[in-house]
Amino acid sequence: MCGVSRSPRLAPSILSCDFSRLGDELRAIQQGGADLVHVDVMDGLFVPNISFGLPILAAARRATDQYLDVHLMIEQPERYIDAFVQAGADGLTVHVEATRHLHRVVQQIRAHGRDAGVTLNPGTPLETLRPVLADVQRVLIMSVNPGFGGQAFIPSALDRIRAVRAWLDDVNPDAHLEVDGGVGPANIRALMDAGANEFVAGSSVFGADGPAEGLRRLREATQ
Amino acid sequence: MCGVSRSPRLAPSILSCDFSRLGDELRAIQQGGADLVHVDVMDGLFVPNISFGLPILAAARRATDQYLDVHLMIEQPERYIDAFVQAGADGLTVHVEATRHLHRVVQQIRAHGRDAGVTLNPGTPLETLRPVLADVQRVLIMSVNPGFGGQAFIPSALDRIRAVRAWLDDVNPDAHLEVDGGVGPANIRALMDAGANEFVAGSSVFGADGPAEGLRRLREATQ
Amino acid sequence: MCGVSRSPRLAPSILSCDFSRLGDELRAIQQGGADLVHVDVMDGLFVPNISFGLPILAAARRATDQYLDVHLMIEQPERYIDAFVQAGADGLTVHVEATRHLHRVVQQIRAHGRDAGVTLNPGTPLETLRPVLADVQRVLIMSVNPGFGGQAFIPSALDRIRAVRAWLDDVNPDAHLEVDGGVGPANIRALMDAGANEFVAGSSVFGADGPAEGLRRLREATQ
Amino acid sequence: MCGVSRSPRLAPSILSCDFSRLGDELRAIQQGGADLVHVDVMDGLFVPNISFGLPILAAARRATDQYLDVHLMIEQPERYIDAFVQAGADGLTVHVEATRHLHRVVQQIRAHGRDAGVTLNPGTPLETLRPVLADVQRVLIMSVNPGFGGQAFIPSALDRIRAVRAWLDDVNPDAHLEVDGGVGPANIRALMDAGANEFVAGSSVFGADGPAEGLRRLREATQ
Amino acid sequence: MCGVSRSPRLAPSILSCDFSRLGDELRAIQQGGADLVHVDVMDGLFVPNISFGLPILAAARRATDQYLDVHLMIEQPERYIDAFVQAGADGLTVHVEATRHLHRVVQQIRAHGRDAGVTLNPGTPLETLRPVLADVQRVLIMSVNPGFGGQAFIPSALDRIRAVRAWLDDVNPDAHLEVDGGVGPANIRALMDAGANEFVAGSSVFGADGPAEGLRRLREATQ
Amino acid sequence: MCGVSRSPRLAPSILSCDFSRLGDELRAIQQGGADLVHVDVMDGLFVPNISFGLPILAAARRATDQYLDVHLMIEQPERYIDAFVQAGADGLTVHVEATRHLHRVVQQIRAHGRDAGVTLNPGTPLETLRPVLADVQRVLIMSVNPGFGGQAFIPSALDRIRAVRAWLDDVNPDAHLEVDGGVGPANIRALMDAGANEFVAGSSVFGADGPAEGLRRLREATQ
Repeated sequence: MCGVSRSPRLAPSILSCDFSRLGDELRAIQQGGADLVHVDVMDGLFVPNISFGLPILAAARRATDQYLDVHLMIEQPERYIDAFVQAGADGLTVHVEATRHLHRVVQQIRAHGRDAGVTLNPGTPLETLRPVLADVQRVLIMSVNPGFGGQAFIPSALDRIRAVRAWLDDVNPDAHLEVDGGVGPANIRALMDAGANEFVAGSSVFGADGPAEGLRRLREATQ
Repeated sequence: MCGVSRSPRLAPSILSCDFSRLGDELRAIQQGGADLVHVDVMDGLFVPNISFGLPILAAARRATDQYLDVHLMIEQPERYIDAFVQAGADGLTVHVEATRHLHRVVQQIRAHGRDAGVTLNPGTPLETLRPVLADVQRVLIMSVNPGFGGQAFIPSALDRIRAVRAWLDDVNPDAHLEVDGGVGPANIRALMDAGANEFVAGSSVFGADGPAEGLRRLREATQ
Repeated sequence: MCGVSRSPRLAPSILSCDFSRLGDELRAIQQGGADLVHVDVMDGLFVPNISFGLPILAAARRATDQYLDVHLMIEQPERYIDAFVQAGADGLTVHVEATRHLHRVVQQIRAHGRDAGVTLNPGTPLETLRPVLADVQRVLIMSVNPGFGGQAFIPSALDRIRAVRAWLDDVNPDAHLEVDGGVGPANIRALMDAGANEFVAGSSVFGADGPAEGLRRLREATQ
Repeated sequence: MCGVSRSPRLAPSILSCDFSRLGDELRAIQQGGADLVHVDVMDGLFVPNISFGLPILAAARRATDQYLDVHLMIEQPERYIDAFVQAGADGLTVHVEATRHLHRVVQQIRAHGRDAGVTLNPGTPLETLRPVLADVQRVLIMSVNPGFGGQAFIPSALDRIRAVRAWLDDVNPDAHLEVDGGVGPANIRALMDAGANEFVAGSSVFGADGPAEGLRRLREATQ
Repeated sequence: MCGVSRSPRLAPSILSCDFSRLGDELRAIQQGGADLVHVDVMDGLFVPNISFGLPILAAARRATDQYLDVHLMIEQPERYIDAFVQAGADGLTVHVEATRHLHRVVQQIRAHGRDAGVTLNPGTPLETLRPVLADVQRVLIMSVNPGFGGQAFIPSALDRIRAVRAWLDDVNPDAHLEVDGGVGPANIRALMDAGANEFVAGSSVFGADGPAEGLRRLREATQ
Repeated sequence: MCGVSRSPRLAPSILSCDFSRLGDELRAIQQGGADLVHVDVMDGLFVPNISFGLPILAAARRATDQYLDVHLMIEQPERYIDAFVQAGADGLTVHVEATRHLHRVVQQIRAHGRDAGVTLNPGTPLETLRPVLADVQRVLIMSVNPGFGGQAFIPSALDRIRAVRAWLDDVNPDAHLEVDGGVGPANIRALMDAGANEFVAGSSVFGADGPAEGLRRLREATQ
């Protein structure tokens, strides 16, 4: 089975939502047809930004029954896996650069019965993913540098998606291949064709016309 | 002038609010008579909890015009002072344990025209505050260990408040003396009498009866 | 009650024993009249030496029923309190320099029902102990720099013992005041007179004439 | 020359021995036919366990003349190479994740005339070994995550052994290929066939029937 | 286009110059025909030596109009890119081991219009360079371990140069391939033949016969 | 004996000199009557600036026979004491904030027969100095925040000088009391009167009129 044939899954990132009304935003994206909710946790050390953590995830959990896809941009994520599971994460994605015990963190997430994901920065070699590729439910390719503002889509992400898609087809065809950073109607089809099937979207969803319209345009562009 | 004679200022901590409707919560506490809004930033390294950071502060800033009193429980706060000012902080309180350049951080906050605050953990000696006591607008005494859940009020905080109040009366009588941790109707009067004039309150405000009632009870207990 | 009038307690440090026969050594010091067993845990980061940790403590626990007095020369001891309790520690002493949450660590040890101790390096001011002085069961004054080999007894330790003894007499007279580093027959009486009542001893116990003789000489010198 | 044809070498890990009688245990494994003694040093930072360090190694050195094969699960091992050599190590194995100067650490060990080993966690790519593969006397493949308790053998270790064996046959056929984690009579033959020739064993040696019997069963299973 | 056909560029490292007369030394190497000036910044943490930083670079900038090729052997170089550009760097080379955001650092250098370089220690796999290979203006292969004194040229550097040369010919033929460590008349031709075109030289330039003679011999040996 | 009565000693800081002609600058300040040469080592981690280290100190050592007074603004100075002694330091001053083993570092410097100094940032309490006050040859009071540019003299430094002078008169009257930061003709007399006897000067020496004139004006202002 090849990733391209899968139906695309849209994952609005709440990092771009209006946090004064998170509950409303979560309802809007669910009604607009979001497939999962992307949650960007940043600790200000692994990346140069402090976003949010446990209480926000817990509030999202109470406000929606959608899949909560948590991207941990934090140092030594092993310290917080249990807490984020407790707060309501359905999937937990960790950075290869953030831990010396990557295989163990994946085991730790799996022991909770949650989906384990693995990701890496744009300047980190894909080889760092391979030892755990067969054990995860999700691989996330970053197409911007996480935590830095105002980044444009990095074109080499397309090649990286193709390479990981090929590896996954071999050893773990059921795993999701997600992409995050500068995803919008203009490039989502190309990303699908490269092999991604999950698409994190921020400003292209939470824009001027509202989440429903943003999601509709993204969905349309996938066809 | 002595701190005891000041009228008490109530500072609900949004850490205890319902984050799915932060805007509503902020409106409720303003209508309920809150004097300032306490914002607890935790990075998961200085304290064992990741709460929230810049996007939540920015959302609060857009939702209210009340004073935003930001408590930075983060490593090396000098890295993020500019960003938190930009996001809307009115006051920024840093931990003596978190930086080697405490005097410089205070200068950095003051250069932005914001109120500089200084705080310390319950096990840290008060002497660590003294070198900057004349330069700050706020001293925060922690009456629980920050970042750890389920803590009871630590009684020795009363003595620590008295000691700092005496020092401030000497060198900086206008500075606020704030207390955070286990504050409620049962002890707020004693804390006032010890010399505190700002009171952070979480569960005693955002409880079952709503912020207005919580604030009313706290206010009443100060009389 | 004044510390000087207490009967002295001798605490041989297993750091100086023959580790190929730890069980025998423990039996010998118990028969020789040791009052407690001192266990020096070093992680190679807080101090420049890696001594031993959990499996050695657990072995000591199985080999003796004497009080195991564990001195944690490790970074962020909060990470390992539960494990060392589990392995059999009766008392756990932490360094003020090693944690930002000293009060919390003391609470953590007390929650296990174990004795909490606090200590500090020879160059660290005694003021750092004061916030937890009323909450601990033991204060340890280092009379050498921990972890560095071949150190001579630092005479200023006597003044430090006197100062802490006076503070303890005020707020916590039941707490033990222990001293570690270069303790032997030549100075033990002076250390007692200064106010210490527990004496860690290494080479003066595990010397050429065996633990029984070493303990006898030390005991004699206290009279 | 292919690793499979070599006679297998058994390396009991003293981490599983009775530390109250280390000398007896070392004698028992020597009489039982152990080929080398495995010494697991953990500092509580590189791995989440503090095992033991210099004084235990020194005691082992005095108690046995067997080859002491020291696995350093510590941060920046370059800081302690000289001390562990001094304490009696014959071989020193360092983690690729623990140092930024891997080539230099290997040089440092070699300058002492000791065997240099290199290892990596199960989630770390094998490519990280390659730059020093020609310069070492031992490669250690971890088949559990080091420092975490209660781990089962990770089956992908077999493929990793095969891959490294092939590389070594090319550039360094004399190097030992050691495996550690969940090794026992049930899988030792398969590990040999994959190319390993040194086998660390803990509970399968220091079990209920004594080291001699444990070693006999392991040896038998290699045939 | 193949790197071998390029004319070699000589880069004297001021680390070996007489710092009491830096201006004279810079004039001497310019008159002697140096092509660029190599500046080795060491912070004492990334490497075990503290060399120099901003004020020395700024002094060099005022003293010469030659290309200043700055090799940052420092932790998290992203913190200092702006300052070193400001101080006068023309090229900035960072270590893959020193940052988790390698792609971002390259972007940061490029945003200043300076040449971005990337390098790695002798024990680090070349794969770590690949994700940014197309984006840089310079790759530096270390043929000694940086920061450690008295190192001999590491022969495997030749293979590493060949491998990177082949990769660069593919994706980025204009990038410079520089080599640093033990370069002298005896091996410069072999390094050129392997594909390097920039040669850092220390003692072989600033030796007894003066920079002009040192550079002449090096140049001669390239032919 | 009181510090005020001592003749003032002027310590030009080479941080402000022209590094393209360090030898000339050193000669100029010696001829101009400098009493010692101040050397500001910054590693970019303890303070936000990377200045210079061993090779610059060594060059200064070869160029002058004046007393080299080295201020180590670096993390864990214990790592580099031996190297800076070797490079030619006469005095070495360390920060209380930079090491957990302050007493030991002082011992380490003294074991080399060099002068040991201790200093602290403007926001650090003076109590941190006390445990080593009797053991040092120099105390340095910072009157700006070290490593940050463009700082004005902090007036509270005067009180800090007075306090330390009183302590030193008690326990160590021979120790030098040095002050660094914004020292010039306008305040040097006041600093003397407060009890300082050594004065670090940067721009007030290496200004437009040359070191001789700068030193003359400073000297004059002390009278």
